Amino acid sequence: MAVGISKLPEFTPVKGLRIGVASAGIKRVGRKDIVLMEIDCGATTSAVFTLNQFCAAPVQLSKKHLATAPTRYLLINTGNANAGTGSRGMADAQRTCNVLAEKTGVSPEAVLPFSTGVIGEYLPVDKVINALDDAIANLSDNAWALAAEGIMTTDTRPKGVSRKIELSVGTITLAGISKGAGMICPNMATMLGYIACDAKVSQAALDKILTNAVNASFNRITIDGDTSTNDSCVLIATGKAGDAEVVEGSADYALLSEAVTEAFRELAQAIVRDGEGATKFITITVEGAQTSSDALKVGYAIAHSPLVKTALFASDPNWGRILAVVGRAGLDKLDIDRVNIKLDDVCIVDKGEKSASYTEALGKAVMSKEEILIRVNLGAGDATETIWTTDLSHEYVTINAEYRT
Amino acid sequence: MAVGISKLPEFTPVKGLRIGVASAGIKRVGRKDIVLMEIDCGATTSAVFTLNQFCAAPVQLSKKHLATAPTRYLLINTGNANAGTGSRGMADAQRTCNVLAEKTGVSPEAVLPFSTGVIGEYLPVDKVINALDDAIANLSDNAWALAAEGIMTTDTRPKGVSRKIELSVGTITLAGISKGAGMICPNMATMLGYIACDAKVSQAALDKILTNAVNASFNRITIDGDTSTNDSCVLIATGKAGDAEVVEGSADYALLSEAVTEAFRELAQAIVRDGEGATKFITITVEGAQTSSDALKVGYAIAHSPLVKTALFASDPNWGRILAVVGRAGLDKLDIDRVNIKLDDVCIVDKGEKSASYTEALGKAVMSKEEILIRVNLGAGDATETIWTTDLSHEYVTINAEYRT
Repeated sequence: MAVGISKLPEFTPVKGLRIGVASAGIKRVGRKDIVLMEIDCGATTSAVFTLNQFCAAPVQLSKKHLATAPTRYLLINTGNANAGTGSRGMADAQRTCNVLAEKTGVSPEAVLPFSTGVIGEYLPVDKVINALDDAIANLSDNAWALAAEGIMTTDTRPKGVSRKIELSVGTITLAGISKGAGMICPNMATMLGYIACDAKVSQAALDKILTNAVNASFNRITIDGDTSTNDSCVLIATGKAGDAEVVEGSADYALLSEAVTEAFRELAQAIVRDGEGATKFITITVEGAQTSSDALKVGYAIAHSPLVKTALFASDPNWGRILAVVGRAGLDKLDIDRVNIKLDDVCIVDKGEKSASYTEALGKAVMSKEEILIRVNLGAGDATETIWTTDLSHEYVTINAEYRT
Repeated sequence: MAVGISKLPEFTPVKGLRIGVASAGIKRVGRKDIVLMEIDCGATTSAVFTLNQFCAAPVQLSKKHLATAPTRYLLINTGNANAGTGSRGMADAQRTCNVLAEKTGVSPEAVLPFSTGVIGEYLPVDKVINALDDAIANLSDNAWALAAEGIMTTDTRPKGVSRKIELSVGTITLAGISKGAGMICPNMATMLGYIACDAKVSQAALDKILTNAVNASFNRITIDGDTSTNDSCVLIATGKAGDAEVVEGSADYALLSEAVTEAFRELAQAIVRDGEGATKFITITVEGAQTSSDALKVGYAIAHSPLVKTALFASDPNWGRILAVVGRAGLDKLDIDRVNIKLDDVCIVDKGEKSASYTEALGKAVMSKEEILIRVNLGAGDATETIWTTDLSHEYVTINAEYRT
């Protein structure tokens, strides 16, 4: 299942970046499970990673490599997360970097490894290494669509964006892909997201653009509240569009930052729309909070409530469940007599109790939609946050009960 | 579904307390949905209530009445929670107390009202009031079993305990009932629990016994992480067993406190065993934590993870999901190289990675059982906490998607 129509855009190649896809047969023979991204010299690369303390070996290694040398290759495999694999897992990740570095004539630190799939099994390193020649041979300007498919796991459809951004320094091309459908509650990043543009941007400026974009996108989605061990999100600026640098504080910088954020949001929402078993796409906006943190507490409490999620699945306007969650969200101060809750434009709770204008028919009409906005106003301040999530369906249980079979 | 065999005990009546059950037809005609408990003069009553800030009208009123006058009646209805009903809800709850008080010749403050069922609908007060005469007429020494059935909502079976406690002052009789199957993550109490004994205990001592018992029982269970608006737990000591008071600090006090805690634990675990859609009964023990709060954080994070819960449902030893949850549980400090995880006696994670002795067959054998112990040792200190929970099955989704139909 998945919500809404979504198909890959026609990708415009990003100058200075090539992609090669290959089959290592990690989980299934013939499956395209290796994606290699080759980045020209002179690019800037930013990345954020999961805050899960059991982060996977490739996450640890990517962090280290990113801090050591300019990035030239991203090596991504699906079918195995190389997480919970201890020192052997680290050695395995290191070996894939070493072999790729040797084959391409770069230093191992110029390679960032990424893995996604089952946690706790050792990476079949030889399979990955055997596929590298193919991936290198396949490197092409125009393989974004293949890459979007190559990084899928339980995703039912590939996810991508392609944009032209008009700046005073010229036209910038942006392309990006993401994957993820379960174990989604990113904390500083999503499962996997790779976005590249050909603007020329300094490391410091690109880091800021990435942080802003992630906090308005991948860090605002949740499917099941489970933060992955492998979340990684990479933003690349190849600098090949022209010589003029997009400088922090400039109008171009603002435009680029906004366009990147917009692209991230689209990719993040695509993950929610393809959430495991999702039949609904839910936007939760919490307004009138004292702090952003309060707004997020309430938003995530609603998004993670199995009772709210099953009611959404059933199109049942059992709004008392939403109210109960607001009450248990853990706010230090909550004046329930000031709380308003709306489903789209239908006011269900007015000043802490059922709205006089509310009818079951109105509630049912909204809840039957495929896309629903839950708006909570706490009446306590000016902070607002929006997050996106899904319902909880039978299909979610089926997918996750049968994940390894 | 429900885990394990469970049937009501043969109840021994508790001297000084009578129970009457009646049908008000709140949700379904003919259903026994009113339970009245009549307590003789001279008893001591303690209670704890939900910390949900949207607590129901009867919870607010019970708190007030409990602080004002000795309790003589508990009036419990199912089928409607009288929560999210604002000032009308308060007036409704008050009116049921007033009418009962008038009929029985006590002050309205001597009545504690309790409601459970759908949130956000007004209580059909007239139906409740019309059933009071029947409930009063039915008052009997020996209606605990009827009461256990009378307070059920989505429960598939009634829950009760009956005990004899041998103290130096004589034999104490204890009986108790509980209800709950969904919206279960009690915070200071469970959905509904009523336990009475005939010991003579002061208010201060009884309050302590209740707090200890609740913290080792109802406050250590979760089914779906949703704390109800109506959680209430009442402990009554009628003092009718004899004149000798059980004094705090005495050997009798210790015995009574332990017996009450044990009875509470049995009632709390009965709720988990009857959890909505439950096919497994899961005990999670987190040892070696720096603080009790750390241990609870990790325990509840595991208990609430949809991915762990669906793997338990599927009997799939996908232990990487447990490890991933430990990593995201939000501990300030976690040395992953010291973490051990066992399923029953099978070591799955040793010092942060897959145990050398672990095999899929061993994992599968444990996960296929109906009762499973997940033991996490954080290797960081001496604090230990145990909580109980269930798996997440298709049946859970079905029950909660169809709750109001």
